[in-house]
Amino acid sequence: MARMAQTAPLQAIGVVRTRYGESEDTPIHASLNRGEQATIEIADAYSDGLDGLAGFDFAWLITWLHKPHGGSMGSPPLRQVPFLLRAQQRKVGLFATRSPRRINPIGLSLIQIVEVTGTVVRFAGVDLLDGTPVLDIKPYVSRFDRPPGEPRCGWFDGVAIADGTNPGQLGVGNPPDATQTP
Amino acid sequence: MARMAQTAPLQAIGVVRTRYGESEDTPIHASLNRGEQATIEIADAYSDGLDGLAGFDFAWLITWLHKPHGGSMGSPPLRQVPFLLRAQQRKVGLFATRSPRRINPIGLSLIQIVEVTGTVVRFAGVDLLDGTPVLDIKPYVSRFDRPPGEPRCGWFDGVAIADGTNPGQLGVGNPPDATQTP
Repeated sequence: MARMAQTAPLQAIGVVRTRYGESEDTPIHASLNRGEQATIEIADAYSDGLDGLAGFDFAWLITWLHKPHGGSMGSPPLRQVPFLLRAQQRKVGLFATRSPRRINPIGLSLIQIVEVTGTVVRFAGVDLLDGTPVLDIKPYVSRFDRPPGEPRCGWFDGVAIADGTNPGQLGVGNPPDATQTP
Repeated sequence: MARMAQTAPLQAIGVVRTRYGESEDTPIHASLNRGEQATIEIADAYSDGLDGLAGFDFAWLITWLHKPHGGSMGSPPLRQVPFLLRAQQRKVGLFATRSPRRINPIGLSLIQIVEVTGTVVRFAGVDLLDGTPVLDIKPYVSRFDRPPGEPRCGWFDGVAIADGTNPGQLGVGNPPDATQTP
């Protein structure tokens, strides 16, 4: 499979401003932290693109997870212990997790749109480090984004998920041989 | 806002195989075309990452929309006529649309996992051109990805959306001055 580095330059359209500086303290998913608000600062050049966004209650915030979790560099392990399986130290395939350590570290957060003022989007549901580059915002469309019924959600169906959870509360991370973290 | 081209190389983890070669004939969203199946071929090097994916009914397929719609190059317009508003020729901000012509052409498709066999993922819900590079697969997790209640979905709430719709059925595209298409 060819690398796409030469043909796929990404461009930050903005930046996320939150109170989080360390990934171990950052809530693991936006939907588990709806009570907190933060902002997106969109670059002036793209402000026209926000026209109409305020009419949506929710949106997908697509980000570049610029700080690898734990500061580790290099390729992420293809089998990882997800945050929510730290207590069991159970590994699953990367593409069956929502881990931030991915081949392409693209983040997908379901944010609630609170207010759009000029180039600033205020939102509820914070799961990102301060300074995270924003790649895209796509409006949440129920007809497109909501599967019918109650879909099976793999290993997530067997774990308790508390609101506001952060990785530091869930136990220690991957063993060093798996993650190359110090 | 700094460009990220130098620091954010993307890598295709696989490729989508569908029967679609032209964007005007391709269904506009996976959820509108659940009756059709296609496959993802994951590169051998990443096969371990698929472990556990079959336990999920749905997943987010994150792709690089490598063929700009209509073959147009250059920056996409920040206000566009979405496929579903072609009849009205009404423009809205890019970040209030699901248009494939984006600053960073990252696709987000909600696919239904049918079968995972080796490095091949068979899925239902096809909205991509044959040969589209795959950047990531993330499992659908209801607790993370389903907003509460019935969220407002902006201008989508005012349009009829038929199953299987493709752009060619919805009328002509953006006027040339807006899209730079021939």
